Amino acid sequence: MDFTVDFSEQENFYLIKVEGEIDAYHSATFKQKTKEKLTELSHTKYVIDMSLVSYIDSAGLGAIVSLLKESRNLKKELILVGLQPQVRKIFEMTKLDKIVKIVDTIDEI
Amino acid sequence: MDFTVDFSEQENFYLIKVEGEIDAYHSATFKQKTKEKLTELSHTKYVIDMSLVSYIDSAGLGAIVSLLKESRNLKKELILVGLQPQVRKIFEMTKLDKIVKIVDTIDEI
Repeated sequence: MDFTVDFSEQENFYLIKVEGEIDAYHSATFKQKTKEKLTELSHTKYVIDMSLVSYIDSAGLGAIVSLLKESRNLKKELILVGLQPQVRKIFEMTKLDKIVKIVDTIDEI
Repeated sequence: MDFTVDFSEQENFYLIKVEGEIDAYHSATFKQKTKEKLTELSHTKYVIDMSLVSYIDSAGLGAIVSLLKESRNLKKELILVGLQPQVRKIFEMTKLDKIVKIVDTIDEI
């Protein structure tokens, strides 16, 4: 299964676009690369576009929780956008949707 | 909500008995205390009794994943026992049941 993370500067936020499954095989790379951007760049708002993420497992959830903690430590905002229904369901069951800001589309940011 | 973790030496393994919800409020303490036992004691088998755990959230799953990594680094075995159906469901949805050994009762260890 292919997995890619694209990083790009947008006008009002920093965009992290993920494609594939955020699982035990890919979550470490995703977490590490995103953490680097969080710590090294000076943006205040980081947006993870999840619209092409078809699945997230326990390791992926752990990565998101870890990035959320890091962003709070740095006084930065982490926002997730475009969760597919089956991914949103996992966020709801594990109450991750209560601790991280989630919006439907980029326009809402 | 009360949350307790009891640690005890058993004949063939080290037992960690958790009661309550392993959530964002309690997972850090649970992870830290259990990690201390994993690193400081010389047992090869650590058993987490989850029979009195009614819920686990994304932070709790992250704690379990982290403990699992730690135990593998230390060449120790981590086994979960007695998951309630709603907790097992969350383990299945996030595929955590594929990477950690889970048994129904203590007798199976």
